[in-house]
Amino acid sequence: MYIIFNPIQMKRLVAGVDIDRVATTLALVDEFGKIYAKSSFPTSDHKEFKNYVARLKDEIDILSEGLHIPHTIEAVGVGAPNSNYYTGDIENAANLIWKGRLPLGKQLSTLFDNKPVVVTNDANAAAIGEMTYGGAKGMKHFVVITLGTGLGSGIVVDGNLLYGHDGFAGEVGHIIVEKKNGRACGCGRKGCLECYASSKGVKNTALELLQGSSEGSRLSKIPENELTSKEIAFAAKAGDPVAKKAFEIAGEHLGAALANLIAVVSPEAIFLCGGVANAGDLIMFPTKRAMEKNVLPLWKGRVKLTFSSLEYENAPILGAAALAIKEIEKKSVVVARRKVF
Amino acid sequence: MYIIFNPIQMKRLVAGVDIDRVATTLALVDEFGKIYAKSSFPTSDHKEFKNYVARLKDEIDILSEGLHIPHTIEAVGVGAPNSNYYTGDIENAANLIWKGRLPLGKQLSTLFDNKPVVVTNDANAAAIGEMTYGGAKGMKHFVVITLGTGLGSGIVVDGNLLYGHDGFAGEVGHIIVEKKNGRACGCGRKGCLECYASSKGVKNTALELLQGSSEGSRLSKIPENELTSKEIAFAAKAGDPVAKKAFEIAGEHLGAALANLIAVVSPEAIFLCGGVANAGDLIMFPTKRAMEKNVLPLWKGRVKLTFSSLEYENAPILGAAALAIKEIEKKSVVVARRKVF
Repeated sequence: MYIIFNPIQMKRLVAGVDIDRVATTLALVDEFGKIYAKSSFPTSDHKEFKNYVARLKDEIDILSEGLHIPHTIEAVGVGAPNSNYYTGDIENAANLIWKGRLPLGKQLSTLFDNKPVVVTNDANAAAIGEMTYGGAKGMKHFVVITLGTGLGSGIVVDGNLLYGHDGFAGEVGHIIVEKKNGRACGCGRKGCLECYASSKGVKNTALELLQGSSEGSRLSKIPENELTSKEIAFAAKAGDPVAKKAFEIAGEHLGAALANLIAVVSPEAIFLCGGVANAGDLIMFPTKRAMEKNVLPLWKGRVKLTFSSLEYENAPILGAAALAIKEIEKKSVVVARRKVF
Repeated sequence: MYIIFNPIQMKRLVAGVDIDRVATTLALVDEFGKIYAKSSFPTSDHKEFKNYVARLKDEIDILSEGLHIPHTIEAVGVGAPNSNYYTGDIENAANLIWKGRLPLGKQLSTLFDNKPVVVTNDANAAAIGEMTYGGAKGMKHFVVITLGTGLGSGIVVDGNLLYGHDGFAGEVGHIIVEKKNGRACGCGRKGCLECYASSKGVKNTALELLQGSSEGSRLSKIPENELTSKEIAFAAKAGDPVAKKAFEIAGEHLGAALANLIAVVSPEAIFLCGGVANAGDLIMFPTKRAMEKNVLPLWKGRVKLTFSSLEYENAPILGAAALAIKEIEKKSVVVARRKVF
């Protein structure tokens, strides 16, 4: 007679964390993108960055303790503004209350018994999320463009994020698209793509059009500080010509820039996500038209332009979780190189 | 008593081949970039592509037979226009006499008992040459720009060439830099960087300036079909204002485009090579000025812009040879991946 022991099957999870100006959202996630627990807290609750990191650790512990299935947390992935994958630091983030270089990766890893903590910007996390759980499954070369307040990009080359020499590659939002009389950008220069194709860009275009337009637009009734790209999309869907034009101009700039980006990295597909992407065809049609018009003949009709297939609300934490999973996979790759010459 | 056998030490070499419109140059090269034998023949000697490949094989054999040290040829690397690393094919090369898809890699490998034959475009080969034998030794992220009749680029990411989804990434020459009233490009579109910063671009700028200029320029005495970027550089060095201005305009376009390229791939360094690069400071100064003026603040003064350190004449065959060496190294990397989740 045999006695078979059934050891308790431990669920292997990672923590995905999304840090933005207002809120820090965190979740425990498995390899299939299933979210087991989720919470959030105000990012600016703690004046001291060290206390913020301790709080983040506590919040992950609280999620873990509340989860009534046996599990381990193997790693933490974090999407945060101005963060550097190579160092794990957040560097001079204009949108956060702490200044200078913030050693998020190191401090959090120390609190977690030196478990892997991976930090990158939200657009890079979105790209890894798309590859792990979304429409880029199985793709080796693709780009994710996040159209939010700013314009971010995550570029995947040969199945890996393109971090570049210093960890900051993929600043597609800061490609200069208007050399003459370009709009002033938050980066201190003029004419960046972000000034035209982000939600701020769409709003500024609408405001410019309203100044010069004699057509009656419902947007003129909205106070300037209440005007958002969401409101403009709403008006455009109702047929407002100024609102429609604002998205067309955003798409023209974005599509032309994507055509140039294709010439550099030759991706299989480009995914759009973020607030402006929620405008749907309003932004997709003019972007696709401009991309196809401007791209080198060899790529005409050959690069897929589509929306992210991740659920908008959960995309950032899924991306961060996927980043952690990818990191664990990377560490398990054994490379044996022998000298051939 | 021991008898020590000293087996003959076989020198391990690769063949590097550079195919251009006029000549095919080939050489036997070792891992240190030492050239053991070199020859060339007219590319258009053979109407049939199959006969051309057979000739190429014969020429490599002739070099090998003439070399009086024991050696093996381990692989062949080829730099050729419009060629695809993934397939080994040359595809629709406007500058070669054979049309359509030419299976160079497969045919040459068959003749060489299935030894590895690697094919890529000349700019990619130049980048691998720079990494193996030149100024990019030890670099993981850098770009080589070839300023010849056209403008090519080889982009290295994480120590590997960026080929993209289809093998055609790195078409920096076809980034559109003039959206309005751009010059007609050979690709069928308008305003490509190649139209301004290649030798053809410098020439066209000089011709435009001559039309509008009342200043006496020595260039106006050279018949249009004899005017080259080399002549313009010569005149510029002698103080000719039109010639100097032509290089300044080329550098302004190139530098601004490089600033945008840095935002995408964040390289450690950018190397310039090819005919226009021989103009030295005439092209370097305005390019560097425009690059630094236009680049995102985070990269100001941090990306090295310099000339290739490979000897101009041998750079293409050294690049092709390095490509073959890199391929052999790649094949020797054993990757064992275990499932972690």
